Amino acid sequence: MKIIIEKDFEAMSETTKNILLGHMSQDKRVNLSITAGNTPVGVYKRMVDIVKDSPDYANVHYYNFDEIPVADQAEGITITDLRKLYLTPANINEANIHPLTVENYAEQDKRLAMAGGLDAMLIGLGGDGHFCGNMPTTTSFENLTYKIKVTGEEPWFVPDMMEAGLEFVTMGPVSVMRVKHLILIVNGEKKAEMVKKVLRGPVTEELPASVLQLHPNLTVILDEAAASELDK
Amino acid sequence: MKIIIEKDFEAMSETTKNILLGHMSQDKRVNLSITAGNTPVGVYKRMVDIVKDSPDYANVHYYNFDEIPVADQAEGITITDLRKLYLTPANINEANIHPLTVENYAEQDKRLAMAGGLDAMLIGLGGDGHFCGNMPTTTSFENLTYKIKVTGEEPWFVPDMMEAGLEFVTMGPVSVMRVKHLILIVNGEKKAEMVKKVLRGPVTEELPASVLQLHPNLTVILDEAAASELDK
Amino acid sequence: MKIIIEKDFEAMSETTKNILLGHMSQDKRVNLSITAGNTPVGVYKRMVDIVKDSPDYANVHYYNFDEIPVADQAEGITITDLRKLYLTPANINEANIHPLTVENYAEQDKRLAMAGGLDAMLIGLGGDGHFCGNMPTTTSFENLTYKIKVTGEEPWFVPDMMEAGLEFVTMGPVSVMRVKHLILIVNGEKKAEMVKKVLRGPVTEELPASVLQLHPNLTVILDEAAASELDK
Amino acid sequence: MKIIIEKDFEAMSETTKNILLGHMSQDKRVNLSITAGNTPVGVYKRMVDIVKDSPDYANVHYYNFDEIPVADQAEGITITDLRKLYLTPANINEANIHPLTVENYAEQDKRLAMAGGLDAMLIGLGGDGHFCGNMPTTTSFENLTYKIKVTGEEPWFVPDMMEAGLEFVTMGPVSVMRVKHLILIVNGEKKAEMVKKVLRGPVTEELPASVLQLHPNLTVILDEAAASELDK
Repeated sequence: MKIIIEKDFEAMSETTKNILLGHMSQDKRVNLSITAGNTPVGVYKRMVDIVKDSPDYANVHYYNFDEIPVADQAEGITITDLRKLYLTPANINEANIHPLTVENYAEQDKRLAMAGGLDAMLIGLGGDGHFCGNMPTTTSFENLTYKIKVTGEEPWFVPDMMEAGLEFVTMGPVSVMRVKHLILIVNGEKKAEMVKKVLRGPVTEELPASVLQLHPNLTVILDEAAASELDK
Repeated sequence: MKIIIEKDFEAMSETTKNILLGHMSQDKRVNLSITAGNTPVGVYKRMVDIVKDSPDYANVHYYNFDEIPVADQAEGITITDLRKLYLTPANINEANIHPLTVENYAEQDKRLAMAGGLDAMLIGLGGDGHFCGNMPTTTSFENLTYKIKVTGEEPWFVPDMMEAGLEFVTMGPVSVMRVKHLILIVNGEKKAEMVKKVLRGPVTEELPASVLQLHPNLTVILDEAAASELDK
Repeated sequence: MKIIIEKDFEAMSETTKNILLGHMSQDKRVNLSITAGNTPVGVYKRMVDIVKDSPDYANVHYYNFDEIPVADQAEGITITDLRKLYLTPANINEANIHPLTVENYAEQDKRLAMAGGLDAMLIGLGGDGHFCGNMPTTTSFENLTYKIKVTGEEPWFVPDMMEAGLEFVTMGPVSVMRVKHLILIVNGEKKAEMVKKVLRGPVTEELPASVLQLHPNLTVILDEAAASELDK
Repeated sequence: MKIIIEKDFEAMSETTKNILLGHMSQDKRVNLSITAGNTPVGVYKRMVDIVKDSPDYANVHYYNFDEIPVADQAEGITITDLRKLYLTPANINEANIHPLTVENYAEQDKRLAMAGGLDAMLIGLGGDGHFCGNMPTTTSFENLTYKIKVTGEEPWFVPDMMEAGLEFVTMGPVSVMRVKHLILIVNGEKKAEMVKKVLRGPVTEELPASVLQLHPNLTVILDEAAASELDK
């Protein structure tokens, strides 16, 4: 594991953008899986400026790594967010976008293998220790891409945001271990304790992201706030 | 995970030899970590015939992955066994042999990184679910190469073979995940139940080899007897 | 460049089979480009015995690297020969066979890039220094996959075998340089002089195979007869 | 080959810095070969700001790819320039600097292979079509790292800058083909014609950089001036 600590959110975003562009600038197909949410907003803003309307990155293919379907919508929460944050403003060709859905999840690992595997994946860390859609109480380390049915009893169940019976999909720990370069970004003091637990504590399914310690090529980029508990 | 099932011990050995030679025949430095014990005897016999006195494999470097020191002996049990089974009959140049010892174990992961990493590692499976020196009750998934002090209370403690207070070293789960191609060989009916448990069951420190399910490029070669419980 | 010299044709074939199986036994999609002709006959005979009806190699995809169309035949000379020697007796799934043709050649390099590139390519050496369909007088080192129109004036033109105006296709030098592991096999005294020229002499388009000296991961397997002039 | 065209020198430098940092930010030893001269000045300025006194890049090792000795000086022109532009202001640990010299050049290719190979190399383009120290009239494509003795008759001989009899060393075309990611930067209108010749013209020893068309993973970064003749 390589940990890079940056001063603040902007510096974290800048370094992360650099790492992603390093991959994207090679002369071969590059398969990238990227995260939705707030943490990568600064990364995507920088990337849009560079990638938009540029012919230089037509070799890059994009994959989401989890998905939550939305009733009456053609596409789920994750890909919708990724389109808004990055894919649409960067004007990415639709042929280079490969959505994971509740319908096609059983093919995800094979599909990635057939395309040469993921060169890089950008992920965030949940305040409860989840990564991708690998949640406490529903994660088994031996999982490839899998489907979870929400019971409503989960500690992370939020009545306003989800309904019992909801099904969502995520790439599992085995799938994520196959990514050639895994990049984890975390910012803010609120996550400092969890950063320490998952990076320095025992590997346990109760904190799914702790399994990332086993990844053979993991780069963690933190702002100083998120890193503040790390080596105490 | 890719599982190859061969008829018997000889066929398992032949296929394993092929895979190792595939790596060794490339035009670059190749770092190989190989296992002592009975399971690889047929592999090494075949390899000695090919490698002995050949200039074609001078690019291959050898590493042991665990070691148990022996009182009054310059070298430990593992490297002594590897010398007997393969390194000496194959006439491997001493400069290509890189012993792991109780003295230098803290440098093992760095030393491997500096040499470009392990291209392949050949391991066996213990009847109790151990791999390398990662034993039930003493393994933590978050370990790099580490030292274990035997208390005498371990379920795998054999009074005739070891003494309480003995210290041995092994590459840990994190170290093994970094190997570019991991090759696990198992033969015999006696291990059939354990093969099923570690390859198809939950990932748990109680059966350390279960963590191998997370390896991004694992090939398992079994004889039919070892595979007999696999998909029941 | 790594040169392995074996006693005879059978030993050359055995070592080559080992190297190919080493690649094929990994836990990922493996893209293989293989040669037609007489040199690989012993390799394919051994591979058929192992691969036939085995589920263990379903991850391997096959590509030819050149093609000569035949009037009134659906498929060209190369793929027809590969089917006869290997693909049909090994019972390879049609979905794993990706023919290069005079019709689709312009897409070959992109198609390979999209599938993650070629992991290995097995080639032979022409008595006139050609490799794949890269012939003296028609090869430019800067070529990707390209089409050649035979004029009838070429030094290698054989009136009984071809007609002026014939068009054939081949992966060019640039395409071959992208192969991750290139394996060249040559046997027989008749080619000993050419082996020396292309491996030890200047890199020149007059002997197209001389460009292989520039490949970053080339393994050459020779029988003793083919190697006999090498270091004189 | 992937060509990225940036507005000007600063944008070219920024993109190049991003690509290098992408490599350097991985969790493994990274071997980098970098160029002296004027073209990379903007790249190094940016890198110094990031790397200086940072513990995050201790995994990066540096190699020069050519060297011209200077009478009465312990070190040659290239490494002296690299120290001034980057290694000293970035405060790189001496143990991470691996000078190529006229004395040790015969070991360069083996030394690199033993360290796992070069992950990336940054090079420039000479106005006469040279790259590294591979000059017109003295380059053979089949060269590994080699020594050149200047006769004084070379078209590129500059009496004020060199003496007949001077010996210098450079990594040759074969050595450069082994670099995993090759990055070529060129700026300025003066080089526009040569950019077109070496990237779009025939591969010929008269313009040594034309051989770079054969590299399996080459990224070219140009400013608009250097790219201005490219597709005319």
